[in-house]
Amino acid sequence: MKKPKVGIIMGSDSDYPIMEETCKTLEEFGVEHEITVTSAHRSPERTRKYVTSLKRRGVQVLIAAAGGAAHLAGVAAAETALPVIGVPIPSASLDGMDSLLSTVQMPGGIPVATVAIGKPGAKNAGLLAVRILALNDSALAKKLDAYIKSMAKQVDVKNKKLQAAHAKSRKT
Amino acid sequence: MKKPKVGIIMGSDSDYPIMEETCKTLEEFGVEHEITVTSAHRSPERTRKYVTSLKRRGVQVLIAAAGGAAHLAGVAAAETALPVIGVPIPSASLDGMDSLLSTVQMPGGIPVATVAIGKPGAKNAGLLAVRILALNDSALAKKLDAYIKSMAKQVDVKNKKLQAAHAKSRKT
Amino acid sequence: MKKPKVGIIMGSDSDYPIMEETCKTLEEFGVEHEITVTSAHRSPERTRKYVTSLKRRGVQVLIAAAGGAAHLAGVAAAETALPVIGVPIPSASLDGMDSLLSTVQMPGGIPVATVAIGKPGAKNAGLLAVRILALNDSALAKKLDAYIKSMAKQVDVKNKKLQAAHAKSRKT
Amino acid sequence: MKKPKVGIIMGSDSDYPIMEETCKTLEEFGVEHEITVTSAHRSPERTRKYVTSLKRRGVQVLIAAAGGAAHLAGVAAAETALPVIGVPIPSASLDGMDSLLSTVQMPGGIPVATVAIGKPGAKNAGLLAVRILALNDSALAKKLDAYIKSMAKQVDVKNKKLQAAHAKSRKT
Amino acid sequence: MKKPKVGIIMGSDSDYPIMEETCKTLEEFGVEHEITVTSAHRSPERTRKYVTSLKRRGVQVLIAAAGGAAHLAGVAAAETALPVIGVPIPSASLDGMDSLLSTVQMPGGIPVATVAIGKPGAKNAGLLAVRILALNDSALAKKLDAYIKSMAKQVDVKNKKLQAAHAKSRKT
Amino acid sequence: MKKPKVGIIMGSDSDYPIMEETCKTLEEFGVEHEITVTSAHRSPERTRKYVTSLKRRGVQVLIAAAGGAAHLAGVAAAETALPVIGVPIPSASLDGMDSLLSTVQMPGGIPVATVAIGKPGAKNAGLLAVRILALNDSALAKKLDAYIKSMAKQVDVKNKKLQAAHAKSRKT
Amino acid sequence: MKKPKVGIIMGSDSDYPIMEETCKTLEEFGVEHEITVTSAHRSPERTRKYVTSLKRRGVQVLIAAAGGAAHLAGVAAAETALPVIGVPIPSASLDGMDSLLSTVQMPGGIPVATVAIGKPGAKNAGLLAVRILALNDSALAKKLDAYIKSMAKQVDVKNKKLQAAHAKSRKT
Amino acid sequence: MKKPKVGIIMGSDSDYPIMEETCKTLEEFGVEHEITVTSAHRSPERTRKYVTSLKRRGVQVLIAAAGGAAHLAGVAAAETALPVIGVPIPSASLDGMDSLLSTVQMPGGIPVATVAIGKPGAKNAGLLAVRILALNDSALAKKLDAYIKSMAKQVDVKNKKLQAAHAKSRKT
Repeated sequence: MKKPKVGIIMGSDSDYPIMEETCKTLEEFGVEHEITVTSAHRSPERTRKYVTSLKRRGVQVLIAAAGGAAHLAGVAAAETALPVIGVPIPSASLDGMDSLLSTVQMPGGIPVATVAIGKPGAKNAGLLAVRILALNDSALAKKLDAYIKSMAKQVDVKNKKLQAAHAKSRKT
Repeated sequence: MKKPKVGIIMGSDSDYPIMEETCKTLEEFGVEHEITVTSAHRSPERTRKYVTSLKRRGVQVLIAAAGGAAHLAGVAAAETALPVIGVPIPSASLDGMDSLLSTVQMPGGIPVATVAIGKPGAKNAGLLAVRILALNDSALAKKLDAYIKSMAKQVDVKNKKLQAAHAKSRKT
Repeated sequence: MKKPKVGIIMGSDSDYPIMEETCKTLEEFGVEHEITVTSAHRSPERTRKYVTSLKRRGVQVLIAAAGGAAHLAGVAAAETALPVIGVPIPSASLDGMDSLLSTVQMPGGIPVATVAIGKPGAKNAGLLAVRILALNDSALAKKLDAYIKSMAKQVDVKNKKLQAAHAKSRKT
Repeated sequence: MKKPKVGIIMGSDSDYPIMEETCKTLEEFGVEHEITVTSAHRSPERTRKYVTSLKRRGVQVLIAAAGGAAHLAGVAAAETALPVIGVPIPSASLDGMDSLLSTVQMPGGIPVATVAIGKPGAKNAGLLAVRILALNDSALAKKLDAYIKSMAKQVDVKNKKLQAAHAKSRKT
Repeated sequence: MKKPKVGIIMGSDSDYPIMEETCKTLEEFGVEHEITVTSAHRSPERTRKYVTSLKRRGVQVLIAAAGGAAHLAGVAAAETALPVIGVPIPSASLDGMDSLLSTVQMPGGIPVATVAIGKPGAKNAGLLAVRILALNDSALAKKLDAYIKSMAKQVDVKNKKLQAAHAKSRKT
Repeated sequence: MKKPKVGIIMGSDSDYPIMEETCKTLEEFGVEHEITVTSAHRSPERTRKYVTSLKRRGVQVLIAAAGGAAHLAGVAAAETALPVIGVPIPSASLDGMDSLLSTVQMPGGIPVATVAIGKPGAKNAGLLAVRILALNDSALAKKLDAYIKSMAKQVDVKNKKLQAAHAKSRKT
Repeated sequence: MKKPKVGIIMGSDSDYPIMEETCKTLEEFGVEHEITVTSAHRSPERTRKYVTSLKRRGVQVLIAAAGGAAHLAGVAAAETALPVIGVPIPSASLDGMDSLLSTVQMPGGIPVATVAIGKPGAKNAGLLAVRILALNDSALAKKLDAYIKSMAKQVDVKNKKLQAAHAKSRKT
Repeated sequence: MKKPKVGIIMGSDSDYPIMEETCKTLEEFGVEHEITVTSAHRSPERTRKYVTSLKRRGVQVLIAAAGGAAHLAGVAAAETALPVIGVPIPSASLDGMDSLLSTVQMPGGIPVATVAIGKPGAKNAGLLAVRILALNDSALAKKLDAYIKSMAKQVDVKNKKLQAAHAKSRKT
């Protein structure tokens, strides 16, 4: 097994159905990664040990997901010099607005690269990691270019289907 | 000098004009306290060392103030079993709504006793510490009862002044 | 039966499914408590009588839960010198944002220790009460330390399960 | 001096510059009123005594103004059967959104007639009291009709001034 | 059939399940009322004719319910000198925050007595109308006093039930 | 088949159940239109080509629907001089508030005519296009006048049904 | 003097400093327009008379500006079949969020073409009117194309200035 | 002059006082960069040409700043495979909440690495670029480590100053 390039941490195992999008995206690009449940609050020492181990193990990008008072990404960014991507998990009460603000509004000095709330953000966290890794991996860069082109093609396919369905419905 | 009963930490020295309200309140009650600038993000190790030192030094309540993605109170509450009071500092862009949500929306397991945004909250953080300490300090409990009574009296004084001013303005 | 150390009030019996989390937490720690339905608005006199009875009956911490224009915690804090913890109940229309702001934004002079909206907050209200009571109860303090350690262990267990499931799903 | 028909309470004397709008409006209609500083939190007993005195003293409408966790109107409405009008005072941090939600989101059973945040609301609180009192005071009802007509005329006057200024500015 | 004292208008018949609370409340007090579907936007002339007919037909209070860009209460308040109560209907997308702000933030000159979003507000609109009408109807005033007392008693009943259930669940 | 007067674009085929309201409305008025799935982000070149083709093909109004960081309407308005109507699609996490702000808060220079979030907005996008086209199409203007009148009549019909149902329910 | 093509109404003369942007924009394009102060609430009849006069006087687009519970655009759109553009004026307390929601969240049936809050919106209201009028005025369409091109050129000019200033500051 | 590694674009030259923080940060680390004013809306072609030129010119990270309906970062991310960092500029009316949501809530497929609103975000955008570039530049990685350590030291210095000032003020 190859060494992981991307580490994914989440505050709770209940975040996995969302963070699975990140895993799938990285797998689609063949980027080795590892996932870990660790909480900024319930297991702070574990979180610290994990985060400070990343660089020497060759991990290059950390993705951190949490909801509510989502401190995980910020706390991790304070313990590593690697780029840290934050995924705000939708929260039970406030739709993830609390998760978003807790993740993105970091003070000057410690950046967290924040993506959208929930599944679109989880997917984009994977893609952002790919964009970063592709800067020094020309094979990955080619896959990324192909991915971007295929998205445009998929829009075209969906468009044709929709237009056909719409035309049909008008005749009825 | 007596040993402090309350520790106050703030993420930045620029939070002091607000947190001065906490200090004044504790001084009014004669409660020994100490203040420290330490950041959850810029000085995580320092924060941890400070927080884990509290219990053995006899500090009983920790007050933590931060703005924006305000992680300080939550991070501290993860490192100590003492009651932690969080003061959301008004932020430059979002009026402190980000500070409030980052402080109050803690996941089950790690409580932060959150008070109001800004100066009223800073004052109330001091008073909440006094309410907690007074549970086992009858002299402090008496001062607290007197304080509560004096607040009602001050309302009466302000009321008389306002009514006099209002009556005067109506004659004009 | 031992005398209760913690009083729990809620504005409506419909808040019980959330506040049950508080009860369970206190029971887990063996902290005696009592629950009462009383409304700041529909039964103000009853609320006042209850709240002013707490201190002389040896109750040390009051937990108050309400939704919408959630005045219960603030009104209680005005009638007792005990520490009052406020739990914002999720409201039908505004996701508990109204409950949160009505509970936390107290004016200087009368603190309410506010926790998160809904179940995580209800659980944390119990834990905050435990943290306060543990200041003068070394047996409870030990239980609290053990609880905090066990949370970290539970994260480890959940992590292993998730990693196993994830590894399995990748092979498929 | 005639007996007041309208009582005005405010949580703090600092609310007066806003609530002066209410007074001016009532004076314009010749409606006797009284103003009192009293806080739901700092002087709960005083508030209760004042509110429960209203009906027997012939006061017919109560106007209550408060900011932040604005409980005053709701607490008053719980102690009297008179119509209670709530004026949300703009708060330091959240622009009065907290004041508005704390005032308007009352649970079923205890209504508060909420008006706009700040000065427009303070003025409208006076006018709403007039609309209520005018139901049984035909002289007041006539004044109210005249007031409504004069508002439309003032719009006409302002329109002419603006059009003149605008026409002039275009020639320049 | 007696002449209605309260008129209820709603922007859409889909608002009825909420506004039924208003009707039930008024029926409970024996207050004659009428309901009408009329829209500020889809049937402006009808709305105007209805609203301007109220006073001469002896209606004393108008209750207007609408959602989204909820203009109905404000538009009605511009066409009558009667007290107008606005009920913000929960909206499909924004939880009724749009309905609330469109109803409550009226400019100085034209007051709308706004109540809570949705069913609690619909009930309270009825009760606010009763409070207003009771100022000049001593029989209604008595019913209102009895209602307020019965609410406190209901809290007591619910409390007993909850305590019994809670005690039982603890034994299990 | 006649040439389309209105172009409808949507960022994803999943927006169709909402945008079907636009289609239905245009069909009701007999206004020829075309629908296209194209994304500002996934297919930027396709979007550009489509938008820049509109004018020469005789399309007069463009309707663009998107959710989340909804850039489609703004990006389209930057590439054509035609009037562009933006429909904010409700988003998974933030109820469409993100879609609304991303669509409406355009900088000076590039207007987007924004309508309500979701289905009411989709319907109104069609009606706004009709209002624009009717400026130079007297047959369409007549249909529009008839439509507006029929809305008022429908209110009357719904009102009668509701009053009948309400009267019946009261007898029960 | 030529007949106005665009009517501009505002709820208060205090909105003029913002709406002047609309006037300037229309003047820049040589589009005849008229401005009127009229309120949905303080002068409903005047508003109605003005709005219903538009079509027969040859006005083709109406721009309506209001703040707070901003009903003016919606009320106007209910009285005319012309396209109505709504400009949300920033409000004293809620930054114009209330104005925006009251303007944009119109129910299905009555569209308001809403632009951004404040000055950018006021400017864009003018440009949107130009885009609509240009559909049937080829001279205006040419001016609009030139305007759009000149915006791009202005960006280029500003860019050069900024880069020069930045280069200079780096040498210092 | 060395070739730039980081490109910075902003929608308006008025964003420069905020984006200067990005420039200063990159200069502090000796990272070559270039700044360009270009708008997603006013100069779409120019923006596209600039963004598509980045990769072949050796630029590795793009930082895009915009306010209001802030489309610039998303539009750029659609035209390049490089990592794009979005800085939400505080907006005139909504405190930058609109800028934040328009930047961060990107649909799955096109990631934007969003940082905090305003100056802290502008600084962190520079630091995030440094973290990304440092993955393949060991000299830069060393500077970054030193920077992180110096932040902790600065906290210590500020703490000592504050404690001295606080101690002094208490003696007075």
